[in-house]
Amino acid sequence: MAQKASIPKGTRDFLPAEVAKRSYVTDVIRTQFERYGFLPIRTPAMEKSSTLKGKYGDEGDRLMFNILNSGEKVKKADFNALEKNALGQFTSSISDKALRYDLTVPFARFVVQHQNEITFPFKRYQIQSVWRADRPQRGRFQEFTQCDADVVGSVSPLLEAECMQLFDDVFNALSLKGATIRINHRSILAGIANYLDAPDRIVDFTVALDKLDKIGTEGVFAELRNKGFDDAALNRLNPMFELSGDIISQLDQLEAILASQPNALEGIAHLRQTLSFLSPFKVSQLAFDLTLARGLNYYTGIIFEVAPPSAVAMGSIGAGGRYDDLTAVFGLRDMHGLGISFGLDRLCIVLEELNLFPHTLDQAVDIVVLHFGEPYIQDLVPYFTKWRDMGIRINCYPLAQKLKKQMQFANQIQAPWVIFYGNDEQQKGIVSLKNMRDGTNSEIKLEDFSKKFIIH
Amino acid sequence: MAQKASIPKGTRDFLPAEVAKRSYVTDVIRTQFERYGFLPIRTPAMEKSSTLKGKYGDEGDRLMFNILNSGEKVKKADFNALEKNALGQFTSSISDKALRYDLTVPFARFVVQHQNEITFPFKRYQIQSVWRADRPQRGRFQEFTQCDADVVGSVSPLLEAECMQLFDDVFNALSLKGATIRINHRSILAGIANYLDAPDRIVDFTVALDKLDKIGTEGVFAELRNKGFDDAALNRLNPMFELSGDIISQLDQLEAILASQPNALEGIAHLRQTLSFLSPFKVSQLAFDLTLARGLNYYTGIIFEVAPPSAVAMGSIGAGGRYDDLTAVFGLRDMHGLGISFGLDRLCIVLEELNLFPHTLDQAVDIVVLHFGEPYIQDLVPYFTKWRDMGIRINCYPLAQKLKKQMQFANQIQAPWVIFYGNDEQQKGIVSLKNMRDGTNSEIKLEDFSKKFIIH
Repeated sequence: MAQKASIPKGTRDFLPAEVAKRSYVTDVIRTQFERYGFLPIRTPAMEKSSTLKGKYGDEGDRLMFNILNSGEKVKKADFNALEKNALGQFTSSISDKALRYDLTVPFARFVVQHQNEITFPFKRYQIQSVWRADRPQRGRFQEFTQCDADVVGSVSPLLEAECMQLFDDVFNALSLKGATIRINHRSILAGIANYLDAPDRIVDFTVALDKLDKIGTEGVFAELRNKGFDDAALNRLNPMFELSGDIISQLDQLEAILASQPNALEGIAHLRQTLSFLSPFKVSQLAFDLTLARGLNYYTGIIFEVAPPSAVAMGSIGAGGRYDDLTAVFGLRDMHGLGISFGLDRLCIVLEELNLFPHTLDQAVDIVVLHFGEPYIQDLVPYFTKWRDMGIRINCYPLAQKLKKQMQFANQIQAPWVIFYGNDEQQKGIVSLKNMRDGTNSEIKLEDFSKKFIIH
Repeated sequence: MAQKASIPKGTRDFLPAEVAKRSYVTDVIRTQFERYGFLPIRTPAMEKSSTLKGKYGDEGDRLMFNILNSGEKVKKADFNALEKNALGQFTSSISDKALRYDLTVPFARFVVQHQNEITFPFKRYQIQSVWRADRPQRGRFQEFTQCDADVVGSVSPLLEAECMQLFDDVFNALSLKGATIRINHRSILAGIANYLDAPDRIVDFTVALDKLDKIGTEGVFAELRNKGFDDAALNRLNPMFELSGDIISQLDQLEAILASQPNALEGIAHLRQTLSFLSPFKVSQLAFDLTLARGLNYYTGIIFEVAPPSAVAMGSIGAGGRYDDLTAVFGLRDMHGLGISFGLDRLCIVLEELNLFPHTLDQAVDIVVLHFGEPYIQDLVPYFTKWRDMGIRINCYPLAQKLKKQMQFANQIQAPWVIFYGNDEQQKGIVSLKNMRDGTNSEIKLEDFSKKFIIH
């Protein structure tokens, strides 16, 4: 009996039209990365488990796809571990490799491994798939593509500014107007925690803050009360929710409130310095966002998050920040890092919803050739070679089937041009050319075709 | 203690210079595929084990990378199977997905799954990684890239001709001269087996034949004798090793020898028809090769194999053939297929050995900017934006470190141009531009730079 043709849940096939869209977006991102001097690297899909495990918290370890050891090695399966329900231990006994979970840890591993082959500061970009055994749902897949740019080995705020500019440049190249690039700084959050007399509860504090969007000020206050913050603390926090004006004036207000907190002042100064290196954005907005606290046990300085235009209901389409200790676990200390990441899948959904994909992407073939059999094709073959060398994409229908059927094919693959070559054309040494957009027909001498035909 | 930074054996990191070379080759292949009307698809890295298992023989099943089931599912581990040394059964109990082993079986699965979304004849190309747990050795990796073009849903010999032309076009675009495109036909081999009175020993026969290169005629004859072919059979075979002249005349000689074998005559006629659709090759040679028998339980018609120029000692750099029943296992019958594949890794080795990579690939950045601190950068930032919008790739050194150190950086990343911007330049409203190839210096007004600077 035939097997059912299907793929694992949470994974996807991409048909040609979808590949064209995804390539369009990654080509734009790649081009922009390169204009800032980022260089491409690639790392293997499989990393040693020891490289990945423990780097993404318990959830990360749980959601990692583990590769079963090959051949006889599975005989080392640790039954006792399984009986004791020690699933992690059982897994380790039969698996020592896992699929890449993100691009950042493999990059840290790469930097340490190749530190003598790299010129620092090292700007690298990487556009590759990552895999997570997440429960599949709308917009969340088990295999998806990340587009990351990172620079390691320097701390200049010029780099922070370049990252923000890069977001704007990519969106500009994609004609995507109205994204908001939100920024915050780890030191400001630390300063606030200290100002609230809770320096060691920065995580509790930021987890609550992060929900402001969803549960409002009162909700955040209620949660903070639950976590033991007293009224005095909340009264101190309140004015920080009411910053107004442009980003510079918001930083001024915050600076006045947090004047007693050296940590916060340092963070504010760093943001100011970063902004001083910024050109005006072309299509995006810039916002300071005190509640932005993503990846807090990871980022050590500036934090970025990019919201799509408000017309699209969707989470962030980009993110990033400074992390100053990522390579230490692989033995290389004091390697400062800063990176941003674009989520290809979400970006494609946004562009689709806003109808921003260029319509030319549908056009994967320039000419479909219809004909009446072998002798006709034999006439044309030398011309095909010549025309293809000029860059014209030609699909010659392979069999002399009914013209109607051949024409249907040309329609279905959305060919903008169709060539007919039959008895009449052969006699006259011409091809009949049909413009499929406007239905007009013309005759061109075979010899003149390469001079007269213009693709678009 | 810090972990050692390393990757699994048989896998590779690619540094920027290597990525540039690989992208160059895949871009060429992609462009040529598209000129023949092939459309891109992508399939997931992980397929269901049921899709892949049993499609590549025992060795394939053994060399497949299996993905461990997530979470609680590993509790279904079948200990009894392991005790009985039934490793395949044990594996099935804890793994229902595996990494793609080639691009052909996933493509067959794709065609069946998406048959209602596809226009036939369907020409698709696919450039993706595949994974095999082969013992790593020179030029053989556990993760490598295949570049496949296939057409399904038609039987015209025009398509066979296009595949051969595509090999030549790709090599031409890569300036790779002297590859040999070898062809054979399954029906000819079947006809010969019948002519030797061994119609059901075609595999034995072709396995021996395939070794002609290595062990010579005498070796092949010895092996065939071992396998039970008698002297009469070998005497009949002998003249077929002595075909001479061009491919047409070789086919003539073979036709005379095998005149009694309808099978063989049909194969020869099909090759002749294919050749009638061929333009003269630009850089490759064409050869008929009776000993070519690759993938015999897979290919049903023409068989291709491409040998690199004789200056490079290396196995085939391309291959392919017609297979007429690949989708049947997934329930779709009578779907004729034909495909070719380029091995990216081997192609890169060949181009490297022959020094055929364009030297411009080394140039990943156009300008490195050296400076003396923040106020200088602030002057330049608006210009950077403008210049980057023109397509110029600019890496601004992030800190005002010693000029010597900045210059060293520019040298190491092989920047063709360096801009200096210090006090003098600021006063005059200029940049100093150094051509790093010839060492010449010039001064350009900031305002005029975008008009005067030409990248290459």
